[in-house]
Amino acid sequence: MLIPADDRGFTLGVGLFETLLVIDGVPQFWAGHMDRLARGCAQLGLPAPDADACGAAAAAVLTRKGREALRLSWTGGSGARGLAAPPSPRPRLIATAAPAPPVPATLSLATVGVRRNPSSLTSRLKTLSYLDNVQARQAAAAAGADEALMLNTGGHLACAAAANLFWFRGDTLCTPALDCGVLDGIMRAAVLAEARAAGRPVEEIEGPPSVLATCDGAFLTSSLIGAVPVAAVDGKPYSAAILARSRSATSAVVRAISAP
Amino acid sequence: MLIPADDRGFTLGVGLFETLLVIDGVPQFWAGHMDRLARGCAQLGLPAPDADACGAAAAAVLTRKGREALRLSWTGGSGARGLAAPPSPRPRLIATAAPAPPVPATLSLATVGVRRNPSSLTSRLKTLSYLDNVQARQAAAAAGADEALMLNTGGHLACAAAANLFWFRGDTLCTPALDCGVLDGIMRAAVLAEARAAGRPVEEIEGPPSVLATCDGAFLTSSLIGAVPVAAVDGKPYSAAILARSRSATSAVVRAISAP
Repeated sequence: MLIPADDRGFTLGVGLFETLLVIDGVPQFWAGHMDRLARGCAQLGLPAPDADACGAAAAAVLTRKGREALRLSWTGGSGARGLAAPPSPRPRLIATAAPAPPVPATLSLATVGVRRNPSSLTSRLKTLSYLDNVQARQAAAAAGADEALMLNTGGHLACAAAANLFWFRGDTLCTPALDCGVLDGIMRAAVLAEARAAGRPVEEIEGPPSVLATCDGAFLTSSLIGAVPVAAVDGKPYSAAILARSRSATSAVVRAISAP
Repeated sequence: MLIPADDRGFTLGVGLFETLLVIDGVPQFWAGHMDRLARGCAQLGLPAPDADACGAAAAAVLTRKGREALRLSWTGGSGARGLAAPPSPRPRLIATAAPAPPVPATLSLATVGVRRNPSSLTSRLKTLSYLDNVQARQAAAAAGADEALMLNTGGHLACAAAANLFWFRGDTLCTPALDCGVLDGIMRAAVLAEARAAGRPVEEIEGPPSVLATCDGAFLTSSLIGAVPVAAVDGKPYSAAILARSRSATSAVVRAISAP
């Protein structure tokens, strides 16, 4: 598939994308992804895509067998030289699919230098200006870890390069608040909604990185991995008891949000 | 011109670009732009383009008449799904040209909400993840100004959406230091080098936005505009005397850096 080189998705990183897990041809959390895409478009000044068109584009690339990762990109559309948007942007829709990566049993984190900027839309939305996340993941890999632990520019916990972060303080499920500069994750929202519906204590907070050293378990969430326990942070593994707690929590989360 | 939709320049905003002023077919500051591109590639883990290939690509799109804006884009190259870079990235080179926009006599600034993140490569390099700059310019336009005044996440002065910022404190020429999260501008470097060569006092500093209210003149620089006086900040115009000082300074700068 080809796109014109004057598309602002390419020239300036103006645009959005969604990555969905598709199981045997059925996109998971389709409505949530479509809704987030529409909200992002409003923030970028782009018309939102038609959900039926997205569905048709997805159908054209999916094999409908097993677990697939579907990516829908929605670009800024062609534009003239310079930063100013065209008066009536005409975004392009690009759908691609690939086998979904296997879900790891655990993930290790390394704190990286690149921080998330709460004043930037790139920290809240999945935009085509995704370089910070690429750099974060690369720095984590260089440190021997699976994923990046990204702080925000205020030094508080934010999220991973491509996943949201949760931890337990006793029985309370904690996660960085959206205004910490974290992706408004579909799985993040599902986990919070499920916990609240079950009456469990939940906090969306601004937390210092030190809480991960003293927490009672931690896990990451994303559309492709669901919920996966954090095994270690910056080379320090959690104890077997803490990891067991994380495993139990993520198993329960995955069961709960997968329930019909 | 078309690019494959799996190029990481499009999917993830991995890549760089340079915008050069070309006068009657002669690219200005060619060596400086090529050098910056190579330095950026080293930071992104990309091979640097061959300068001759860049020259040939430029020659193919320039009319060689009058003032043209040449853009050279150097992408991350095709990649598989996910954030990890291919083992041997094969970037694509895309050259485009357009008539250079007219140089304005003055520019007005409006402070915008999106801030520059010194921990992000996107604040230092001209990357394909340029959304923050697009958003900044759009916010400035919505406030009735020509350009954005961007602070960094620490609240200090940084630069405009697509230009560097200078101001005078008495006879001292001041500009935000590179580690404030400003673009390492070709014109910025030329202005600093010229001032130092002439023995004038120069400071690269971390400055609060309040200095612009009490300064003795201010101007913006970029490859396409050269140096242009700032007429007003957040709706407050500079006095005729201050503006005359800025005009005089920018005229001298443009003469000095254009001298053979």
